[in-house]
Amino acid sequence: MSFYDKLKFDGSGLIPAIIQERTTGRVLMMAWMNRASLEQTVATGKTHFWSRSRQKFWMKGESSGHTQAVKDIAFDCDGDTLLIQVEQIGAACHEGYRSCFFRSTQDAGAGFRITEPQLETPEQIYGKK
Amino acid sequence: MSFYDKLKFDGSGLIPAIIQERTTGRVLMMAWMNRASLEQTVATGKTHFWSRSRQKFWMKGESSGHTQAVKDIAFDCDGDTLLIQVEQIGAACHEGYRSCFFRSTQDAGAGFRITEPQLETPEQIYGKK
Repeated sequence: MSFYDKLKFDGSGLIPAIIQERTTGRVLMMAWMNRASLEQTVATGKTHFWSRSRQKFWMKGESSGHTQAVKDIAFDCDGDTLLIQVEQIGAACHEGYRSCFFRSTQDAGAGFRITEPQLETPEQIYGKK
Repeated sequence: MSFYDKLKFDGSGLIPAIIQERTTGRVLMMAWMNRASLEQTVATGKTHFWSRSRQKFWMKGESSGHTQAVKDIAFDCDGDTLLIQVEQIGAACHEGYRSCFFRSTQDAGAGFRITEPQLETPEQIYGKK
């Protein structure tokens, strides 16, 4: 049985993909894939997604150069979420942080804090092209 | 500004929560929260979710005893995904694996493999009550 046969895409044809840095275990981002972007991810070894807000197929890093080389693709018991191990070039987050999860709270309601350094500003990332 | 003000729940009032084991970095599962389940998670220090398939509020471990003690709650740049660090009792997966992501492919299309031992069978987990 193929790996694709175990997957359940939602009513919009999408499945969430958690992107984890293989060497550190850090969760870098979560984004959505449709079947075509998953197939392209498998075929090229670089992550491709479907942007719900822009209704657009995109390769991670196509603007920023911050691509993700795929090392493993796992899927959960229900087949409705992917967990992809990658090697990340530069900042995964469009705001210039290594991980999109750069803010956290241990005391919700009382605010939050930034938990990691900003590697680059968005202007540095997207202005440089 | 409150942490809640940074979050975006989707059209169904839900936000995906990635659950990560704090000590190992292992991603254990992904499930959905509504605002009430997130508030309950914060208030009790145990993860609570909203089941889309059962349309039901649930505490992780309420049947299995496999609860999750919350250590940190992070959120991403878009405010539409949570990343929660936990200490997991027993198997996170209802199929008896430590992580729901117990299968992976490095060669999609050619199948997949089980990547970790099954700690208990579902019968052992849910039959024991």
